[in-house]
Amino acid sequence: MPANRSAARRAERRRKRTHSPLAHIPWQPTENKLPPLEVLTPEQVERIHDASMRILEEIGLVFLDGEALELWQRAGAAVDWKEQRVRIDRGLLLDLAARAPERWTWRARNPARDIPIGDDFITFAPNGGTVFAQDLDKGRRPGVMEDYENFLRLNQISNVIHYSGDQIVVPHDVPVSHRHLRTQYAAVTLTDKALIGMAHGRVISADAVAMARIVFQEEITQSDRPVLGGVVNASSPLRWDERMIGGILTYARANQALIVTPFILAGAMSPITMAAALAQQNAEALAGIALAQLARPGAPVIYGGFATNVDMKTGGPAFGTPEGAWAMAAGAQLARRYGLPYRGSGSLNTSKLPDAQAAYETMWPLWPAVLAHTNFILHAVGWLEAGMVSSYEKFIIDLESLAMFAHFLEGQIVDEATLALESIAEVGPGGHHFGTAHTQARYGSEFYTPILSDRQDYETWRLRGAEDAAVHANRIWKQTLADYQAPPLDEAIREELADFVRRRQEALAGVELYG
Amino acid sequence: MPANRSAARRAERRRKRTHSPLAHIPWQPTENKLPPLEVLTPEQVERIHDASMRILEEIGLVFLDGEALELWQRAGAAVDWKEQRVRIDRGLLLDLAARAPERWTWRARNPARDIPIGDDFITFAPNGGTVFAQDLDKGRRPGVMEDYENFLRLNQISNVIHYSGDQIVVPHDVPVSHRHLRTQYAAVTLTDKALIGMAHGRVISADAVAMARIVFQEEITQSDRPVLGGVVNASSPLRWDERMIGGILTYARANQALIVTPFILAGAMSPITMAAALAQQNAEALAGIALAQLARPGAPVIYGGFATNVDMKTGGPAFGTPEGAWAMAAGAQLARRYGLPYRGSGSLNTSKLPDAQAAYETMWPLWPAVLAHTNFILHAVGWLEAGMVSSYEKFIIDLESLAMFAHFLEGQIVDEATLALESIAEVGPGGHHFGTAHTQARYGSEFYTPILSDRQDYETWRLRGAEDAAVHANRIWKQTLADYQAPPLDEAIREELADFVRRRQEALAGVELYG
Repeated sequence: MPANRSAARRAERRRKRTHSPLAHIPWQPTENKLPPLEVLTPEQVERIHDASMRILEEIGLVFLDGEALELWQRAGAAVDWKEQRVRIDRGLLLDLAARAPERWTWRARNPARDIPIGDDFITFAPNGGTVFAQDLDKGRRPGVMEDYENFLRLNQISNVIHYSGDQIVVPHDVPVSHRHLRTQYAAVTLTDKALIGMAHGRVISADAVAMARIVFQEEITQSDRPVLGGVVNASSPLRWDERMIGGILTYARANQALIVTPFILAGAMSPITMAAALAQQNAEALAGIALAQLARPGAPVIYGGFATNVDMKTGGPAFGTPEGAWAMAAGAQLARRYGLPYRGSGSLNTSKLPDAQAAYETMWPLWPAVLAHTNFILHAVGWLEAGMVSSYEKFIIDLESLAMFAHFLEGQIVDEATLALESIAEVGPGGHHFGTAHTQARYGSEFYTPILSDRQDYETWRLRGAEDAAVHANRIWKQTLADYQAPPLDEAIREELADFVRRRQEALAGVELYG
Repeated sequence: MPANRSAARRAERRRKRTHSPLAHIPWQPTENKLPPLEVLTPEQVERIHDASMRILEEIGLVFLDGEALELWQRAGAAVDWKEQRVRIDRGLLLDLAARAPERWTWRARNPARDIPIGDDFITFAPNGGTVFAQDLDKGRRPGVMEDYENFLRLNQISNVIHYSGDQIVVPHDVPVSHRHLRTQYAAVTLTDKALIGMAHGRVISADAVAMARIVFQEEITQSDRPVLGGVVNASSPLRWDERMIGGILTYARANQALIVTPFILAGAMSPITMAAALAQQNAEALAGIALAQLARPGAPVIYGGFATNVDMKTGGPAFGTPEGAWAMAAGAQLARRYGLPYRGSGSLNTSKLPDAQAAYETMWPLWPAVLAHTNFILHAVGWLEAGMVSSYEKFIIDLESLAMFAHFLEGQIVDEATLALESIAEVGPGGHHFGTAHTQARYGSEFYTPILSDRQDYETWRLRGAEDAAVHANRIWKQTLADYQAPPLDEAIREELADFVRRRQEALAGVELYG
């Protein structure tokens, strides 16, 4: 008996030791009930709004797609077919934008993971579009499918991440024409969270919708209950290209969500002044949103902001800047003006390593994004190097802050029990509160418990290996991957999906698609 | 001629190369014109206020000082002489607190460095009370006078730091009884910024005031124009000790500023619930402030908040937590309720190294401190390891964020020139804004230029040594110290000060003073 008991105890200790610290953070939609951070006065909002309307009316946007030009012409916009340029009256534009729903539910294949979009809800999504994977062991290298799948596994186990993810890192070992099939298959099978799909061109987008339909085994075209969302970027300044328009039209017609995001580096893709960058962003985002409404009135959309500045020394992008922080909050105010959910970004930075720079720059978009009520925060975990890299260690580093925000936004209860005057009286001046009944009753649950932060005293920390945050994060992501268990999936659905992927891979072999 | 010219050019290049990047940040008072971040509803503010009044009235505070008890007795408070406990009616307490000025000027020996305190002004002060110095070359070791002086030099050259600093790091090579003399002499001679003085006990505090009087060569007792400020901490729970009371009475009588700060780790020095920690902090801070007003009505004070939580695993302090962030903002709301300037903290963290943890934890107090309109942000640069360490590299890392806040809070101009519709029209869809007249005219000044952040592309960064932020910061602080020049000081004043220090060192030799 004692032997057995001590074996059980050892097993329990082992289980605890290998248990990832990520698991203790509960799944929850995060809500920000504080008044939103506002960096613009109401007059400034109107001034930027008016400038963007003048851009749409007087300067116009280019739409590099015949079908889009046709839709605009039929709606009554002034189309210059030679220049493929469309000038849109503000009455028409605002009427179209007003058709988009203000709030909706982004459904997941596990209904417990459905996500409310809009209002005060804050959700965190993984990276999109990074080229390299990086970790302390293998360094920086082109991403492969194994990395893609690993990041999906980390997403699945990380309860503060609300989405599966798409284009988390480019899987270079899969042919371009098959990537969207393989990555979406992986997202569905390795996670049960809300799906972000690729919305690039008509072929890829239609495949994404078809796969979602297989997963849900039902009609998925209720506008307030999409099951798939994709990011589309304007090629700023003032241009929507065929690839993105294909995504907009295909997703909108299937009533799937579009995250309509101009990509503006002020000083390069817009004038250098942030006011102009915001006005231009507003014109581009609203034009894309209106196009989606032309394709299907009521299609769910998210207004995307991704304006930052160019670095005037290197000519490269600057992330984690005061200008970007301002634009993040200002963009949220504009989205609210039109009653649209808002997308921002989390861990933007330009560091090459998961170091102090990566960490402090990341807080420059993240704090204003959360405080400004950003409903969809993309690139929330693992970004490095201006979005070139998905880092395993940075993933864990960023998770800590997301989990802290979830806790911070819950606020603190102020009532008789928490004001605890009896306990203060009982302990009295100079006493100690560690052992009181009031403290002991709340011991395990009152405070946020860190995932990564090391609070050991110096000597203990030194004797245990003097790890910095990146080395500690390295241990954690490995532990987490070891703990990973795939969520259940109906075998018939898995087979139908696999069959779809096989058939489409054959059909698309050698076809040149967008990467 | 050509040889000379090229030699001159080489010298100029060398000068530029060795020029610290800190110098480009202008001296400025930082103002936050945004509405303050508020985490409490008005009802919650009143509820916490009422609880703290009940603490003062029903439970009372201990004052371990006969003179303080005498003052309270004369003012009409209920004094229990045996327990040294004072119960203070809210009418009396609020009447006393209301005598403190709402806004005032903290004068510096260089009038260009005078600092406005109160309203929307945000000021940044260096560390206080750290034991060890740390840098990448020499590691972590007990601080010495050379470190103290180095940090003063870094403060002087860093325009986003508004104060000289006191107790930046303990100078272990100076006897305890001489430290306050030597450190204040160093602060006056190596910087021309506003003086933070030691306010520990009557002897040290009187010396600090006497030295300030020598520096200013005039009466320095106008309550709205102090030239010296000192931090006093309640020994929570509910206790002011003789050392701190000596500081309060001495500074207040000289009309010098007191930063009255309870030091509460919820779960140890207060109940575990943050609402109780805040109510207790409010009672302790207001009691200290009221005592200062008893000593001299109208003496300038700052309401200090320093509540965070204990780490329930290690029993040690937890810094950079969601609970601490909440308390930072909640404390500002309470200070505003009484019309008092507010003190918070900047770079609080528990990391042992200038790594990612140090950087992200630091942003947890810093963002809410700035957004909640914290007038005096102590420990703003270089803190590590729960305040045990002043790190040279972390100093530079933190400076970057302070400089970014100064820029962020300036906001962005929204007018015809910055909306730049002509420029947007001229460049048109798909064009590039880098070379426009609008961009070129603003090229050098529009964006914040980083001190430390590396924005080079990967290959360039790798070829130039692949530095992480700490290694880069190491180069920068050395460059900065090499650039340092002492600000001018009247030689007669310097001699009078040196003479004072010599005389007092002789008088105090062997006397046991507070460290």
